[in-house]
Amino acid sequence: MGEPRYLSGDQPAIEEFLAKFDTFLFDCDGVLWSGDHIFPRTAETLEMLRSKGKQLVFVTNNSTKSRADYKKKFDKLGVPVTVDEVFGSAYSAAVYIARILKLPAPKNKVFVLGESGIEEELRAENVPFIGGTDASLRRDIEPEDFTNIADGSALDPDVGIVLAGLDFHVNYLKLAHAFGYLKRGATFLATNTDSTLPMAHTLFPGAGSIEAPLVTASGKSPLALGKPSQAMMDAVEGKFKFDRSRTCMIGDRLNTDIRFGIEGQLGGTLAVLSGVNKKEDFLGEGDGTGVKPAFYADKLGDLLG
Amino acid sequence: MGEPRYLSGDQPAIEEFLAKFDTFLFDCDGVLWSGDHIFPRTAETLEMLRSKGKQLVFVTNNSTKSRADYKKKFDKLGVPVTVDEVFGSAYSAAVYIARILKLPAPKNKVFVLGESGIEEELRAENVPFIGGTDASLRRDIEPEDFTNIADGSALDPDVGIVLAGLDFHVNYLKLAHAFGYLKRGATFLATNTDSTLPMAHTLFPGAGSIEAPLVTASGKSPLALGKPSQAMMDAVEGKFKFDRSRTCMIGDRLNTDIRFGIEGQLGGTLAVLSGVNKKEDFLGEGDGTGVKPAFYADKLGDLLG
Repeated sequence: MGEPRYLSGDQPAIEEFLAKFDTFLFDCDGVLWSGDHIFPRTAETLEMLRSKGKQLVFVTNNSTKSRADYKKKFDKLGVPVTVDEVFGSAYSAAVYIARILKLPAPKNKVFVLGESGIEEELRAENVPFIGGTDASLRRDIEPEDFTNIADGSALDPDVGIVLAGLDFHVNYLKLAHAFGYLKRGATFLATNTDSTLPMAHTLFPGAGSIEAPLVTASGKSPLALGKPSQAMMDAVEGKFKFDRSRTCMIGDRLNTDIRFGIEGQLGGTLAVLSGVNKKEDFLGEGDGTGVKPAFYADKLGDLLG
Repeated sequence: MGEPRYLSGDQPAIEEFLAKFDTFLFDCDGVLWSGDHIFPRTAETLEMLRSKGKQLVFVTNNSTKSRADYKKKFDKLGVPVTVDEVFGSAYSAAVYIARILKLPAPKNKVFVLGESGIEEELRAENVPFIGGTDASLRRDIEPEDFTNIADGSALDPDVGIVLAGLDFHVNYLKLAHAFGYLKRGATFLATNTDSTLPMAHTLFPGAGSIEAPLVTASGKSPLALGKPSQAMMDAVEGKFKFDRSRTCMIGDRLNTDIRFGIEGQLGGTLAVLSGVNKKEDFLGEGDGTGVKPAFYADKLGDLLG
């Protein structure tokens, strides 16, 4: 694979790039915004793409938000989207559980380590669940919890799946429950495994870090339903019916976004430098992983020329 | 290395075993007790060893308790020990920070992810610290925390070390602080890295699992001051002045206790089957790690014959 082509400030290269694709898949955090800070000219860039008839899909690994929550975030930041253009890892996981895994009821209940975004998407797919934002689990572990988890009396006999994602309310009690289910043989799923979360212009522990205690304790790795898992690409394609060769993935992370596009055999990938990875990570020797985007730009807004 | 010798019920083998050693290093959880349940004949076995003039040292990776806390646990379970016979990973870490690492003040402050046992041992070694059981960190993360951690205003400029261990009160806010310090270049230490904690006859997430988010987020592994780290063996030997060739490590975990004894070139190791590992893990092909004890018994009390 050749070296990535740099687009910022190169109008002919930008026009050639835009002409190659009908569909753009966007990562959000690190591409459109960082936390609650929207990057300059984001809305204008998306408007330009729409005006050229491009299909836009916002593919996010953030599992704390449902698609409806995500739409609210777009609205608040002044970027017009529809709920159907948003495809999150929580939704991806719910679709996988309901339509692909299809465990026989009643043993198909999910124990959630995560926030309300996961719960909303499971509810939308009629998947029964416990855990999540349940207030009764937002407390310190007590001596009797150890006993009750150990003898199984605190565990729901119908739980057959542990679904983990980013949980800002993670605690030992929830981890102990989830580990109890995993030891009993529950299927281990993760919305995504991003190690870090871009927030406030820096990085915080991501979903992969919050799930790490379960991976370490159980010795098992979850099946991840977010980028770069191709289970997510298949689900996105199933819904949006795009031509992969005329589709470009735009993201800030080599090991999730760009890998997602390359392994999905999309027509192209564009790395923007407004998030996690820097150009040193993919130019020349790069970070040693060999994951290189086809194109790169300093920021998404540079596509406006 | 030959196959481990089985001692339970074999009186001549037991007597030969006892005659080979002057000092016995004991793991506690899984050997003497499981959680608050003491195994039968524990006190009598220790008494028998003392009556034969053996030196006993209780080497535990449990960092939630100080040596003084541990003595209370022995007292409560009816096993006579002195504080000086107890050597915990929290103590080991405090000794390492104060006497070996010796960062120049004032940049030698420790951010603790862990319980009061770590705090007590740091205090005993005059090591300044924050975090730990600080009530102001036992709360949900708020939007301003992200900003204040990101811009550094919530971080103590003097913290040069992150010391992580088992924390039953782990939460996202503490993990975010610890990760903030690690990103700033703090030295990453762990009391121990046991993936699981034996409690109530089963396993719960251990120190290694609670530290895992920091390992995943930072991409760095901590220097561990508990078994099987030889930093701990050196510290134990420095304090107790034993002859390694006449010393036996007794434990239930191959990857911590038995490895600790083998890598420390002790005269012998004894695996008891009352904890994590089963004999299938080390007989014949075993678990594939090649870690084999020299001796094994069903339980510690079998040494009574």
